[in-house]
Amino acid sequence: MIKTTRVFNFAAGPAIMPVPVLEEAQRDLVSLPGVGMSVMEISHRSRTFEDILSKAIADVRELAGIPSNYKILMLQGGASLQFSMVPMNLLTSGSVADYIDTGSWAKKAMKEAGKVGKVNVAATTKADSYSRIPEAAEIKYTPGAAYVHMTSNNTIEGTQWKTLPNAGDAPLISDASSDIFSRPIDVARHAVIYAGAQKNLGPSGVTLVIIREDLLSRSQDALPTMLNYRVHAENNSLYNTPNTF
Amino acid sequence: MIKTTRVFNFAAGPAIMPVPVLEEAQRDLVSLPGVGMSVMEISHRSRTFEDILSKAIADVRELAGIPSNYKILMLQGGASLQFSMVPMNLLTSGSVADYIDTGSWAKKAMKEAGKVGKVNVAATTKADSYSRIPEAAEIKYTPGAAYVHMTSNNTIEGTQWKTLPNAGDAPLISDASSDIFSRPIDVARHAVIYAGAQKNLGPSGVTLVIIREDLLSRSQDALPTMLNYRVHAENNSLYNTPNTF
Repeated sequence: MIKTTRVFNFAAGPAIMPVPVLEEAQRDLVSLPGVGMSVMEISHRSRTFEDILSKAIADVRELAGIPSNYKILMLQGGASLQFSMVPMNLLTSGSVADYIDTGSWAKKAMKEAGKVGKVNVAATTKADSYSRIPEAAEIKYTPGAAYVHMTSNNTIEGTQWKTLPNAGDAPLISDASSDIFSRPIDVARHAVIYAGAQKNLGPSGVTLVIIREDLLSRSQDALPTMLNYRVHAENNSLYNTPNTF
Repeated sequence: MIKTTRVFNFAAGPAIMPVPVLEEAQRDLVSLPGVGMSVMEISHRSRTFEDILSKAIADVRELAGIPSNYKILMLQGGASLQFSMVPMNLLTSGSVADYIDTGSWAKKAMKEAGKVGKVNVAATTKADSYSRIPEAAEIKYTPGAAYVHMTSNNTIEGTQWKTLPNAGDAPLISDASSDIFSRPIDVARHAVIYAGAQKNLGPSGVTLVIIREDLLSRSQDALPTMLNYRVHAENNSLYNTPNTF
């Protein structure tokens, strides 16, 4: 006997999606109403697809209360590619990036940043087996740091930031893959928030990047085009064919 | 009235998909038979997903007759990201990459390679407005080139290679995005074949990379992990959460 009832998925991710969302996707999969083609087949330059993308971006903006001076990008590659894109775009030559080490995912982010430029471990709770988030007094910020990087929620260690670190004037960058939209976000205190979609937002394959517009001027033309935040912002996340599911 | 009949899509891409494929995807979208979750929800570490991926890779291998000394990778980012990944992995320090300029897509590939290392334009038909593929005698190969790059089919210019260029001992790399699987491929004459899936293979969001195993030793640890062919080969394209549609 083939089981076709729905199973509740408690995994950290890819996580469960609302049944009405899956049912709408299912209904439209062979043919979008009024279009006659699947969303996987239509041109990403078509009005239909642009409307779908614009609606998704507007919904994210409304849901998270994202101010108008932030761009909302929908990219590929997951948070793992953001570990590289963040320093490649934002760790400008001659400066230092502060990373707060709260465990497995933070270390992955630090490792990729270390390939790009200078990294300072502003705080670590490694001595406590990452069983807690650092206290404010433990965090040693670099004056004039290119940015401060944090991991909002640490799935493997079971810890979560309850209040944001006080990074001062340095842009605060948060990997929010595993807790985005599970609680209100004070977006204006961040410079960049990024998250793979497959835990809390939608299907795997989409990566959300919320970036304050003034940061875009740091992206150099010498970067690989597909890794350049400014290019994706200027092209409204449609520089090349995006994934459609 | 809402039109729900299927429209035939003649676009270069994203292109039409077979209705039985769309109908199977539709049937299983809310719940894979015997699983009770959507493919968008299940873990990429699960046996179910590994079986789906293994089957897709085996099908590609059989369909194209790909020898056992080639790895088949399913990545993200489209051919546009391959324009950067090819030189970042394969254009080793001190060497030169030969590019054959047959128009718009070839120029994009060359531009990204030029950010990484030395590029030689081995041939160009620009003077003829790219209305033809270069003759064999027109192609000036660099002795000891890191590789020779070609664009198998040029969608904008309407030209296609009918016989492969004779790159000698240099690894031949082909962007086959727009004609892969439209005709037999002599895989053994290539070192790398890459293609965005959305034209001839499947949905947008998947990028196929077929790479001869000996090339993988060129990928340096200093590369961004997500852009390292060797990492993706060692992890069977499951280094991080892949897109599932």
